[in-house]
Amino acid sequence: MIGLYPGSFDPITNGHLNIIERSTKIVSKLIIGVLDNCDKKSFFPLADRVAMIRESTKHLKNISIITFDGLLVDCAKINKADIIIRGLRNLSDLHFETQLDVINKKLDNTIEIIYLISCDKYLHLSSSIVKEIALKKGDISKFVPEAVVERFRRRDIFKKTSSIFNT
Amino acid sequence: MIGLYPGSFDPITNGHLNIIERSTKIVSKLIIGVLDNCDKKSFFPLADRVAMIRESTKHLKNISIITFDGLLVDCAKINKADIIIRGLRNLSDLHFETQLDVINKKLDNTIEIIYLISCDKYLHLSSSIVKEIALKKGDISKFVPEAVVERFRRRDIFKKTSSIFNT
Amino acid sequence: MIGLYPGSFDPITNGHLNIIERSTKIVSKLIIGVLDNCDKKSFFPLADRVAMIRESTKHLKNISIITFDGLLVDCAKINKADIIIRGLRNLSDLHFETQLDVINKKLDNTIEIIYLISCDKYLHLSSSIVKEIALKKGDISKFVPEAVVERFRRRDIFKKTSSIFNT
Amino acid sequence: MIGLYPGSFDPITNGHLNIIERSTKIVSKLIIGVLDNCDKKSFFPLADRVAMIRESTKHLKNISIITFDGLLVDCAKINKADIIIRGLRNLSDLHFETQLDVINKKLDNTIEIIYLISCDKYLHLSSSIVKEIALKKGDISKFVPEAVVERFRRRDIFKKTSSIFNT
Amino acid sequence: MIGLYPGSFDPITNGHLNIIERSTKIVSKLIIGVLDNCDKKSFFPLADRVAMIRESTKHLKNISIITFDGLLVDCAKINKADIIIRGLRNLSDLHFETQLDVINKKLDNTIEIIYLISCDKYLHLSSSIVKEIALKKGDISKFVPEAVVERFRRRDIFKKTSSIFNT
Amino acid sequence: MIGLYPGSFDPITNGHLNIIERSTKIVSKLIIGVLDNCDKKSFFPLADRVAMIRESTKHLKNISIITFDGLLVDCAKINKADIIIRGLRNLSDLHFETQLDVINKKLDNTIEIIYLISCDKYLHLSSSIVKEIALKKGDISKFVPEAVVERFRRRDIFKKTSSIFNT
Repeated sequence: MIGLYPGSFDPITNGHLNIIERSTKIVSKLIIGVLDNCDKKSFFPLADRVAMIRESTKHLKNISIITFDGLLVDCAKINKADIIIRGLRNLSDLHFETQLDVINKKLDNTIEIIYLISCDKYLHLSSSIVKEIALKKGDISKFVPEAVVERFRRRDIFKKTSSIFNT
Repeated sequence: MIGLYPGSFDPITNGHLNIIERSTKIVSKLIIGVLDNCDKKSFFPLADRVAMIRESTKHLKNISIITFDGLLVDCAKINKADIIIRGLRNLSDLHFETQLDVINKKLDNTIEIIYLISCDKYLHLSSSIVKEIALKKGDISKFVPEAVVERFRRRDIFKKTSSIFNT
Repeated sequence: MIGLYPGSFDPITNGHLNIIERSTKIVSKLIIGVLDNCDKKSFFPLADRVAMIRESTKHLKNISIITFDGLLVDCAKINKADIIIRGLRNLSDLHFETQLDVINKKLDNTIEIIYLISCDKYLHLSSSIVKEIALKKGDISKFVPEAVVERFRRRDIFKKTSSIFNT
Repeated sequence: MIGLYPGSFDPITNGHLNIIERSTKIVSKLIIGVLDNCDKKSFFPLADRVAMIRESTKHLKNISIITFDGLLVDCAKINKADIIIRGLRNLSDLHFETQLDVINKKLDNTIEIIYLISCDKYLHLSSSIVKEIALKKGDISKFVPEAVVERFRRRDIFKKTSSIFNT
Repeated sequence: MIGLYPGSFDPITNGHLNIIERSTKIVSKLIIGVLDNCDKKSFFPLADRVAMIRESTKHLKNISIITFDGLLVDCAKINKADIIIRGLRNLSDLHFETQLDVINKKLDNTIEIIYLISCDKYLHLSSSIVKEIALKKGDISKFVPEAVVERFRRRDIFKKTSSIFNT
Repeated sequence: MIGLYPGSFDPITNGHLNIIERSTKIVSKLIIGVLDNCDKKSFFPLADRVAMIRESTKHLKNISIITFDGLLVDCAKINKADIIIRGLRNLSDLHFETQLDVINKKLDNTIEIIYLISCDKYLHLSSSIVKEIALKKGDISKFVPEAVVERFRRRDIFKKTSSIFNT
């Protein structure tokens, strides 16, 4: 069984990595699909996001990384994925995922979507909060793989992200 | 009894249409209030949003379509609406609507707001997800009236909307 | 338009009364449907629950009080109600009401259900919390009509209700 | 891969059946685990619950039905299941399932739990609401397999369940 | 400042203990208030619940343990508590606590209630799930203090609790 | 005990003021920390936001107002705060706050965060909704201190905020 794990991975966190590791025990081959946001709003460019995933998943077998920019169901079909795998952390995730799931089913009901609930230590972790902490010069090494810590270090002037206090 | 059903309708979906059809059985006259977002962030211009509603509600009687840009309670008063009608899909809706309801009541407590819960097949449908799918060249014909499908077809270059994956 | 406002009213609270008063401005006749829980688990007997509603709604016109024990949709049909009215306080209410709404629609889709969101001062009020406070000899006069305060006073030995701390 | 789908199935609904059918496409063998509530609070006896599942899943291959009364993780281990499959309908489910998932992981972290989100038409369906409707002589044939409709028909005197209005 | 931390503690868990330890850093004296459920529905008798708390908090200073059976605000007043402390794990907790908070404020607005959010490793822990696991002969030693593990061991025949699968 | 109450206060509302007043009864000194959003997305400039807080809290003692732009935990440490105080209104707040709380604990677990639940009359109030109403020429005097009403009056041309209908 081939699984597709899609996301923006901007950047990959330990929470994503945990879902990836658990997914490799469920499927025989795991495709990590990195969304190519054409609208360029991502913090890290697509190539960097892919590179950080590659470096962080070196220890895992049967993984391939692709990029995509169309509909998730089309991406799954083109890559011959049997199932789509997604992580669930909380209610907001559930609302969003349910919406996506139901709509995707109406676009193509041949691909099943399965959910893995995040481990409790990653329940509150997100790419956004990692960027927020890094932007404020906090220590992110507990939250992301080493490859990501390095990339943040290399960027001298941080591209501004909207502060989590703004909302 | 005159009812006001306000929204951005950017664009109208089958979910909106379902609330409109059900509302016409409750009130003797239904006014559809289209928000004129002065800040121009809408995907379709106001005139188009009104036109799509008009074409999609031709089969219904006792409907009028207006545009407004001030407070909802003022719009209701000016148009002599007795009640405001709103659709509820989920928790996020409920939070937002409760906030709006309570605040509106404090601004003017003479107009009642009633809620209709979306049919299950429209529970996960929103204007945003329709735009997302259309932007990615997916088939939206199951989710919106024919008038909307046409409008999307006519637009050759899509104005970009933020990808739902960005969050 | 005839509206049906169903519930257990065990006992009626100021929150229920607020929904009733607002409903009378929407419908020309309001039927208050009191559920006859055959399984006898209610705190107040059916007759008392009806009497407390009657005494608390004396100032309102065009109200009738009935009891019922079957399906809500059947009760609505028999009493020629055009719409069913329900109050929404929070998420738990929304889940429960959505479930009920969707299922009722599948049993009979000719009767519309409309929701009124509770005023903020009644958002946290429920019959259960009133019984809890009364049981613990607290002052409930801010939360229920005078008719209910009296009934609690008349009962010397309170029938035990499960403590809200048990969960 | 062997999957375990546990539950009370009191009785099996079309929602359960939908999860079962979808699961058979993910795993090579599906074990349906019926909880033997020793405390006898179930509406249908264990044997009946198993029989209704058997009759409703005749069209599916590679399914086996077992009963269990200990910890879910022990049941999975004894039956050599590689993954546990659960359905998610809404927030209450998510809370409960997350709790169960996290606690089970701490008891045994070798078995993965995956979630399937209920189809929209089954999102509001539960065994409890089916029993409620049946108790009130409503038509349940849209909500459960034929085997369940029959069983309800055969029971002349319904064992009382607590009314959903009681809460 | 004197703080009151109320609960059923049936039995005390590591999650409760964590809130107690953190509370002792906020208040100069902490009173642990154990609810005396007169309706006898608790799993452990009141004396046992108190004893388990006593044994589990030996390492902490400035703690006293009391029992109470009336309103929380009355308990706080009698014991001269300045604030009431409560733990928050999730949405259900929030709903319940908000309701309690608002109602208590209306009964007596001189006592402030403060909330501590549970550590992530205790977010999914509850007295109920501990009893469920113990009842099914699972290992609870990761979830409760040693004093509680012992008490469960001493009870040969477990009093039945309702299975979490029943709902 | 020194408390830190952080926020954007863009602008301060009666809900913020209520939390401030209640906090002064819990801590001996309260520091109000105003976030200096370097990205300039705030409606009122930092100096104005500070001034409005100052004018609105003149009646309170033992308050100091600071600005900060780094991590909340660093701000707390530099200012020798023993606890951080935050208001909780609803679910969205809880999600956000839990995430922040857990992550902050991992960055520095020596500072405790306590939550106060908003009074029911402020449960639906936010800086955003105040700006929305002011922008639409509605009356905000029930929702904010006089100092804020004045500031809005002085601004002839409102800087546009995104309409709450846009989402």
